[in-house]
Amino acid sequence: MEFNCTPIGVIHTSYNTKESAPIQGAFHSDAIGTVEVAAEFAEGLLDIELFSHLILLYHFDRATDVELVRRPFLDDTPHGIFATRHPCRPSGIGLSIVKLVGREGNLLQVSGIDVLDGTPLLDIKPYVARFDCFPEASEGWFAGKKQREKPSGRE
Amino acid sequence: MEFNCTPIGVIHTSYNTKESAPIQGAFHSDAIGTVEVAAEFAEGLLDIELFSHLILLYHFDRATDVELVRRPFLDDTPHGIFATRHPCRPSGIGLSIVKLVGREGNLLQVSGIDVLDGTPLLDIKPYVARFDCFPEASEGWFAGKKQREKPSGRE
Repeated sequence: MEFNCTPIGVIHTSYNTKESAPIQGAFHSDAIGTVEVAAEFAEGLLDIELFSHLILLYHFDRATDVELVRRPFLDDTPHGIFATRHPCRPSGIGLSIVKLVGREGNLLQVSGIDVLDGTPLLDIKPYVARFDCFPEASEGWFAGKKQREKPSGRE
Repeated sequence: MEFNCTPIGVIHTSYNTKESAPIQGAFHSDAIGTVEVAAEFAEGLLDIELFSHLILLYHFDRATDVELVRRPFLDDTPHGIFATRHPCRPSGIGLSIVKLVGREGNLLQVSGIDVLDGTPLLDIKPYVARFDCFPEASEGWFAGKKQREKPSGRE
């Protein structure tokens, strides 16, 4: 019952270590990256520039062991992994919503990106506010949490 | 370079055929489903009920051949697959943002769900408006498109 998919490209950023990567790109809208779609999939980018925001799915390829309950980066209380966005999760799949700044062929310049350089890209989907924007959503344990440095030893 | 992950559960809905499933759950907030997390992963649900909205990632397990440029359900003009949310995409990964209605152990009742019954669940992430809500996002080719029946032969 394993699920397999082939990455469609790679994400280039200036973050080479886990310590240097921001906790969430939305806190760092100036964080710029380049999404490189492999030539064989580039045709699928037709009309992508009609969208200002994109959903990126990628593989947390440098995540370590999964812990089902753990302390996330932004809180010192442990939570279930499905109540956090932590990289060390069963699926190994990460999600970021980024702003599309420009396109040159199969290269997309994006901002608000928070992943490690060389992260394998799994999918790009258009962000559509009608489907994806829920301003009334509760903040859960994120309420009142502010951006901070990643606590050491929390991977 | 293949990416592998093991599903963490299954999504139960009343939609047994592609024709019966809504195009987007956001158009059908009354569409109710049950997200069943496998017992071995249930511990990871700790504190999930703090969140009103969840991001579900799942495997489009009944999707057919990938076409990189195709006509989506809501438009008669072809677009690149990465500028659509169509199931027949290279990754085979689907994404829905749903409302969490209730929880009984490893079963989550959700609304606004648009997937086929028995869809393999890959991940659950908390929806956090601060990271995920961009009301200013352009609508791309979705602008002005209204919900409609799925055109026949468009899979």
